[in-house]
Amino acid sequence: MRAAEMIELWRGDRRESLHLGHAVICDSAGVVEAWGSPGEVIFPRSSCKMIQALPLVESGAADAAGLSDRQLALACASHNGAHIHVEAVDRWLTALDLQETDLRCGCHMPKDTEENRRLTCSDQKPDQRHNNCSGKHAGFLTLNRHLGGGPEYVEPDHPVQKAAKAAFEEVTGEDSPGYGIDGCSAPNHACSLTGLASAMAAFASSGGDRRGQAMRRLTDAMRAHPEMVAGEGRACTSLMRAMRGKVAVKTGAEGVFVAILPEQGLGIALKAQDGASRASEAAIVALLLHLQVLDRDDPVVSTYLTGPIRNWRGIVTGEMRTAPGFPG
Amino acid sequence: MRAAEMIELWRGDRRESLHLGHAVICDSAGVVEAWGSPGEVIFPRSSCKMIQALPLVESGAADAAGLSDRQLALACASHNGAHIHVEAVDRWLTALDLQETDLRCGCHMPKDTEENRRLTCSDQKPDQRHNNCSGKHAGFLTLNRHLGGGPEYVEPDHPVQKAAKAAFEEVTGEDSPGYGIDGCSAPNHACSLTGLASAMAAFASSGGDRRGQAMRRLTDAMRAHPEMVAGEGRACTSLMRAMRGKVAVKTGAEGVFVAILPEQGLGIALKAQDGASRASEAAIVALLLHLQVLDRDDPVVSTYLTGPIRNWRGIVTGEMRTAPGFPG
Repeated sequence: MRAAEMIELWRGDRRESLHLGHAVICDSAGVVEAWGSPGEVIFPRSSCKMIQALPLVESGAADAAGLSDRQLALACASHNGAHIHVEAVDRWLTALDLQETDLRCGCHMPKDTEENRRLTCSDQKPDQRHNNCSGKHAGFLTLNRHLGGGPEYVEPDHPVQKAAKAAFEEVTGEDSPGYGIDGCSAPNHACSLTGLASAMAAFASSGGDRRGQAMRRLTDAMRAHPEMVAGEGRACTSLMRAMRGKVAVKTGAEGVFVAILPEQGLGIALKAQDGASRASEAAIVALLLHLQVLDRDDPVVSTYLTGPIRNWRGIVTGEMRTAPGFPG
Repeated sequence: MRAAEMIELWRGDRRESLHLGHAVICDSAGVVEAWGSPGEVIFPRSSCKMIQALPLVESGAADAAGLSDRQLALACASHNGAHIHVEAVDRWLTALDLQETDLRCGCHMPKDTEENRRLTCSDQKPDQRHNNCSGKHAGFLTLNRHLGGGPEYVEPDHPVQKAAKAAFEEVTGEDSPGYGIDGCSAPNHACSLTGLASAMAAFASSGGDRRGQAMRRLTDAMRAHPEMVAGEGRACTSLMRAMRGKVAVKTGAEGVFVAILPEQGLGIALKAQDGASRASEAAIVALLLHLQVLDRDDPVVSTYLTGPIRNWRGIVTGEMRTAPGFPG
């Protein structure tokens, strides 16, 4: 099936650009509603970090290391590299008696304005703690300590990644058709959007068994610490705050977004076909409005979906809209 | 007609994202080759700056003000706001006995790394000279001096904008169905992709009349001063350098790219439906390869189209490709 028209950008009285994509809402029984092709196979990228963190909790490694919910939220994060994130990763590594050089995520400049400015203006380079995935990697290292694996924990056949893959295939209910190497060097396993939305529905309606408890704990950690999951000015943080902790949301590179709705027992997964974040952010807002878990008057709605587009002199030049046939 | 599949992003052995779009190649007689819908009506955005600059040259205003080819290239530019651009606009305004406050383009931080860093680290704000369109606006002010219009030269019914609209409709061969307000506050008139590609073909095969001379002069100015049209690290500058001044190219916001090929008498216009620059940059490279005006071994080809995608540790995670059915 073809991708659905999801998000439009208008300038004056004319549609200027259009984002296509696929979106699925699942409950524990399967697909509830879908747009585009629910069977579309995608790389979830960072949207599946709470799945990759399941072995950390289920194995007992998180408890053995005395991890807090704030650290578990950071393990599920694509963070801004702000001071709070870098410091938290630094303390985490220190507690494990490890160093920044034990990370395998690579370096990039932080998105956080202040930290970016601090590095830029003091001629410093970022280190691996600034990588948006450093919390996930601190989680990998914690699991690795527990499993006793070697230092190259991002290799696909390393015990840490084998555990992550097993959890991923179990919660998506699919044999992954393959993996790609993610921006942070960890394997990222492909699945269908329905598989990913089903996994999010499982997180939303988790039971009392070991897996259910781990799912609940990670979901609660994300909802309780939205600032650790992304950072100031980022969609994940702003949306979780706007929904007052009722819903957990997570973005992934190349236009992926997921949501876990515990009160409704629902999971959402979507991908903008072209990989644009502005489209996936607008589309998740549209679906959260559709499911009535986000207040239409909340400022995040105009920030990411309906708000006017202004130019450099503040003049309104157009607006974003959901395409006909897509909710919101 | 539907948009064509143009550019794919692959991760591992799987297509991760896909950009659709429309592209047209015209000669002076009309459409030579097209992908997607050549009749698609778009906003050309900054890709039509050489058209907007026609009245500046044709009216005699450019000569009256003694403008150099370097300044004419800047009038057609979406520049980086680097020192060379800001200084050139500053001198231009001074020569007109005008000030930065006479511009109506608004302020934004420059893309140029050094100038951005200088402003950031000295706690300075950008001014309107940094706006990527400030050269176009200096051109508007020069024409305005010649025409004797009022200071609000970006109003749609101001003589400067009436002249720009008349030139636009004449060279596209279409009555524009409407306009939007551009990022820099000037009206941006809509046209079909075929209209835009035809206009570029007219620039490519310009005759000896007043319009033809103006077209040739602007095309030559862009080709002779690629660093003024965009800046270091930008696609327009890199591509014109790679083609050793044989072809003029210009990008526009929301995924537009055009090219003027004087030796072939051809014009190209394309738009990525989703507005992504990475798609329009890759697609124009693909079409320039298709027309054999760009060397397949030139580094710009791997930079913008075929090159491997690497992650934060330098590991190759995938690649960009042209979609089956799109050339390159």
